[in-house]
Amino acid sequence: MTHPALHIKIRLYCGDEIAMGPGKADLLDAIAEHGSISAAGRALGMSYRRTWMLVDVMNRCWDEPLVETAAGGSHGGGARISERGRQILAHYRALEQKTLDAAQGDDWTALGGFLRNQPKEAHRKAEG
Amino acid sequence: MTHPALHIKIRLYCGDEIAMGPGKADLLDAIAEHGSISAAGRALGMSYRRTWMLVDVMNRCWDEPLVETAAGGSHGGGARISERGRQILAHYRALEQKTLDAAQGDDWTALGGFLRNQPKEAHRKAEG
Repeated sequence: MTHPALHIKIRLYCGDEIAMGPGKADLLDAIAEHGSISAAGRALGMSYRRTWMLVDVMNRCWDEPLVETAAGGSHGGGARISERGRQILAHYRALEQKTLDAAQGDDWTALGGFLRNQPKEAHRKAEG
Repeated sequence: MTHPALHIKIRLYCGDEIAMGPGKADLLDAIAEHGSISAAGRALGMSYRRTWMLVDVMNRCWDEPLVETAAGGSHGGGARISERGRQILAHYRALEQKTLDAAQGDDWTALGGFLRNQPKEAHRKAEG
């Protein structure tokens, strides 16, 4: 059972750049689905510029490119995930699942017992 | 051994508010150390307004307040972490450690083998 109140975000850094994180992993999934970087970005509601920036950062942070573009220039043709891209995406998703599993223990049970479903209203007057 | 390239951020939500996360946990630690909300905020380089906003959100998201202010008004006197605050902070820090431990396995080893130490330079000319 997952807990919607518990969010775990994993980021892998290469120097000061984020080599992999939730947004880049979702973009890889979308490129695999759509076969196009631009179409993947549109599906995720991202600008053209931001989509290509994320792909560029990913391709510079690992030993091999994760996204390969077809001949015809970067704006033409299609795109696909490389074998290395598939490996990295699979390991990243496994890390997400393992950390989420590890969080489902006594500590989360105790925290969930103290957590309200909704916050108390803000700007209350002082009591008394 | 910890890996500086691997960052895990845990957030606990109460409705749309973040009931606990890295910034609020650090603020609780600082309040415990300094005995004052304002001094804790200064130590963390946060504005007075933002510091009090984080405390207000924390105190509205759990069944009991996590931070208690002494008599004399919110700007006078000191502040301390309640017993509930200590419990929640301890469970949150334990969650952080457990998820980090869970991430130190084969998946991270494989990813670390593919990750560059520094990104390749941006704006390369196309090869060929």
